[in-house]
Amino acid sequence: MANNDIPLGLLLWQKLRNLNIRNVMGVPGDMNLELLDYINEVEGLNWVGNANELNAAYAADGYCRVSGVPGVVVTTMGVGELSALNGIAGAYTEQVKVIHIVGTTPLAAHEKHLMIHHCLGPSPDHKVYEKTSQHVRTAHCWLDNPATAAREIDRVVHECYAKSLPVYIFFPVDMVDRKVPAPSPSQLDLAPFTDKLSQKAAISATLNLLYKAKSPAVIVDALTARHRGKDVTRKLVDLLQFPTYSTSMGKSIIDETESYFCGIYNGQVSVPEVCEVLEQKSDLVLDLGPILADSNTGGHSRKIAEHQIIAVHPHHVTIECVVYPNIGLVSFLSTLLETIEKFRLPHVASPGRAPLPAAKDVDSKLITQSWIWTRLGEFCRPGDVVIAESGTAQFGFPDANLPEDITYITQVYYGSIGYSVPATLGAAVALRELNREGRVILVVGDGSLQLTVQEIGTMVKLGFKNIIIVVINNNGYTIERAIHGPEEAYNDIAAWNHQAMLEFFGAKNARASTREARTKKELDEVLGLPEYQHPSGIQVLEVFMEQMDVPWRLATQIDLINKRNAATRKRQDDQSA
Amino acid sequence: MANNDIPLGLLLWQKLRNLNIRNVMGVPGDMNLELLDYINEVEGLNWVGNANELNAAYAADGYCRVSGVPGVVVTTMGVGELSALNGIAGAYTEQVKVIHIVGTTPLAAHEKHLMIHHCLGPSPDHKVYEKTSQHVRTAHCWLDNPATAAREIDRVVHECYAKSLPVYIFFPVDMVDRKVPAPSPSQLDLAPFTDKLSQKAAISATLNLLYKAKSPAVIVDALTARHRGKDVTRKLVDLLQFPTYSTSMGKSIIDETESYFCGIYNGQVSVPEVCEVLEQKSDLVLDLGPILADSNTGGHSRKIAEHQIIAVHPHHVTIECVVYPNIGLVSFLSTLLETIEKFRLPHVASPGRAPLPAAKDVDSKLITQSWIWTRLGEFCRPGDVVIAESGTAQFGFPDANLPEDITYITQVYYGSIGYSVPATLGAAVALRELNREGRVILVVGDGSLQLTVQEIGTMVKLGFKNIIIVVINNNGYTIERAIHGPEEAYNDIAAWNHQAMLEFFGAKNARASTREARTKKELDEVLGLPEYQHPSGIQVLEVFMEQMDVPWRLATQIDLINKRNAATRKRQDDQSA
Repeated sequence: MANNDIPLGLLLWQKLRNLNIRNVMGVPGDMNLELLDYINEVEGLNWVGNANELNAAYAADGYCRVSGVPGVVVTTMGVGELSALNGIAGAYTEQVKVIHIVGTTPLAAHEKHLMIHHCLGPSPDHKVYEKTSQHVRTAHCWLDNPATAAREIDRVVHECYAKSLPVYIFFPVDMVDRKVPAPSPSQLDLAPFTDKLSQKAAISATLNLLYKAKSPAVIVDALTARHRGKDVTRKLVDLLQFPTYSTSMGKSIIDETESYFCGIYNGQVSVPEVCEVLEQKSDLVLDLGPILADSNTGGHSRKIAEHQIIAVHPHHVTIECVVYPNIGLVSFLSTLLETIEKFRLPHVASPGRAPLPAAKDVDSKLITQSWIWTRLGEFCRPGDVVIAESGTAQFGFPDANLPEDITYITQVYYGSIGYSVPATLGAAVALRELNREGRVILVVGDGSLQLTVQEIGTMVKLGFKNIIIVVINNNGYTIERAIHGPEEAYNDIAAWNHQAMLEFFGAKNARASTREARTKKELDEVLGLPEYQHPSGIQVLEVFMEQMDVPWRLATQIDLINKRNAATRKRQDDQSA
Repeated sequence: MANNDIPLGLLLWQKLRNLNIRNVMGVPGDMNLELLDYINEVEGLNWVGNANELNAAYAADGYCRVSGVPGVVVTTMGVGELSALNGIAGAYTEQVKVIHIVGTTPLAAHEKHLMIHHCLGPSPDHKVYEKTSQHVRTAHCWLDNPATAAREIDRVVHECYAKSLPVYIFFPVDMVDRKVPAPSPSQLDLAPFTDKLSQKAAISATLNLLYKAKSPAVIVDALTARHRGKDVTRKLVDLLQFPTYSTSMGKSIIDETESYFCGIYNGQVSVPEVCEVLEQKSDLVLDLGPILADSNTGGHSRKIAEHQIIAVHPHHVTIECVVYPNIGLVSFLSTLLETIEKFRLPHVASPGRAPLPAAKDVDSKLITQSWIWTRLGEFCRPGDVVIAESGTAQFGFPDANLPEDITYITQVYYGSIGYSVPATLGAAVALRELNREGRVILVVGDGSLQLTVQEIGTMVKLGFKNIIIVVINNNGYTIERAIHGPEEAYNDIAAWNHQAMLEFFGAKNARASTREARTKKELDEVLGLPEYQHPSGIQVLEVFMEQMDVPWRLATQIDLINKRNAATRKRQDDQSA
């Protein structure tokens, strides 16, 4: 044993701290307590402590989206580990970097198949839970061997970054104190592999098309940001000055106040002018970091000809239907940025942001879906983080004109209701550790709120002052009512008293920090209050809205899907007749 | 298509209703809404609607433990399905019958690997989530073929009952309305397979040993009840009149007021007189439905000679170390009961219930661990359901002398904190549908409460009047403080205001139904109130207890494990030196 040997538990935290990770989510349990002891020994590393493990996983996801470094969540084998699984699956589907550390039973118990609490069934395989997460991670390791542990940590961290996907580290409780050599200060390679020859060919083909294009356009989608390409993407669209669009998932990655920004493209669930430019007028579309999920493409209703698309994926580029493999997104965009000769680019006039469809209820004094999202957009300020829950918020916020430097968070592809509340906590933790000003503005429906509400207690515990929670009270699962069963009892929820929420979670000045708004005027007044401009404590605002009022994008998408389903059913009936 | 064809969705509910299932847990989602429509078409079947899916799974578990029929939980593919996983794993480990129905994407989307929301990653396999639950279920089926669907449902229901384990039914949304023949009214065989020859040999060997034993004893453990053997077990111990013990998990299965009941056996974590009888004085121990998990055996510290044990397992019997395979527990116990010639049984005087260890703090006016559990036992009345959360309640309740006809619920082997709150809801739902009188008394710690608190909202929504929630406020995770890190911040929790809990969840008379107690006198007074004797609304009682006070069984078990771990470490150090 060398003099500079350190406990394996400490080594793990030191390595994570070296990645600039400063906060750790999770729930303590008897198989991770010893590991948690070592957090205190690493300068600048903090334990958050969540209300439950699903929330911890969501919070780790939200933390990564703001901080840029992986979210870390610690659980206990089985009981905690499985509770976190859905949050990890969300991070996988949305390509968010999360490191899930599972404290397990001691190795000695594994060999004997001992029935230790938290195990599964009789004569338990202590590694069985590893199999449940096999499909929601890109790599995993067991820290069961001091000789290989450091290398194994580096390997899974590299995979986490390179793929921008979750990884698992299984840590038997009897290994935490085992001594290993202190880590050397070497820098870990975090970038994905890029084949230089493939990239050279792709750059050449891209430049060729860019220079000869007459009416090119750009779509900026979520995977640019997820794969650490936000900065280079912004520089690129700035250089190109082509008409540029976001998607529902890509919103806020580029500066929406720039003249070249023309709105959100979501297939046929877009304002007609957006479709017109991208689907008819453009002869080349640079599609950056696309996620072509139904919910991000108007139910797969994009109509851009494949041979006019240059699609920059995280690990390959597709140009006119030809695949250039093994190219990292940042590597490609950076090289493109350096290589472009600006004077050879076409000049394309920006059509600007098209107006939203006219609403019939524009004169309503009540708060309507056609009004609130642009209003909330006006409320946002540079530096804010805005979080939209699945449901009406997710379909409404694309209408908002956001100022520059907003981080907009929403889970469009995975779409797990309840995600947003813990993600708000994670975002607030990240903002604080970065010493960044700005508010964290959550918009969540009364239905979704119920799944993960206890994480508001963690916000109170950590003393956040800059979180504004807007609860849309529309009496149940409105998005589901719109899809099916508008009057069915299964779309009702328990009627909570949101006015008592902050008080229950132990906030100071709870009642004074809780408000409600039923009319546009009331909402305007609240949003103008000093507590909302410069909050000095968590604010809760309950916004009452009509049960069947939905954003136009949601109505359009449901209409489109219903028509498609009806056609499918008719075809099936014709076949079986 | 025949005239008596019905939709497959309706068929599923009819089949479940025929099992006497009357309530369905779950959360609505866009892939199960059509299925939920058909619940209304089945007389006597109701939708509960939980706050989230983990809670729904726990509630289904609690429902089964009281009703005896499987708990049913409906979720949406991925997002809901995975959130429920930990609850299902608990049911698997504790051998509780749960049927998890997952509404999935339409079959047509499967073939094309369409990126539908809730799917996993790019080019998604729509059946990938099926693999995550592979190890926490005993059977599953896909209702993807109208020709086989009815048979498939019967097959998994049979497995659910025969193994007393969870099963999964995956139901693509486009199959719900497909027509299938109405079910014939045939009765499904629910019993596990029994090999009559094997059973005959086991019965003969058992009788032989019983008749010649001089000082036999019985241990009644949890799997008797889980495998539908509660009634026959009670009749058997009544006939035998041997000294009879329960375990932590088996508590309340037999009538604790009977003279032959002598207390709880939990290895060396028992009162000495219990160990003495079972480990030294007895020459034969009938061990009925054992679960030999660490937490149910004092950390694997039982000291009963194997060759003196007749162990009746769910699917086999072990007699003097010989295995008699393929014998169902109920079949064996019923046959034994019918075959025993009572006059040939030995007469054994009952030592009675041994006194608990003397407590040093017996004179304390504050509420102590050495006092509260026997006090809560006195509070219980026949017909009540008592639910103890993992933590101090689980280690304390074995001290309580329960009246007859109590259902005591706790999750000792799996030990997932947060289980008890939704299990309470499930128990209350079951009690109501059985038209049984009785209160549902939950005892939960402030730490565990935080994981699943929102299910109290569902209790309020459903208008339960007979639920008493006792929250032990000892300022954090006391059981973990006892295990490791008593002063560490990770064992602290957010400081909620429990006095505002019912109000937040929308209960009527919320403040009047919320109380606190800091002294024995205060607790006595509250427990004596009419609202506690005959509750007419949910009651919340916050009981303040000292942070480091723990039940003697918990202290003993931790002490035992620490000594063992220290010995292991010393051995390892000696080896590596």
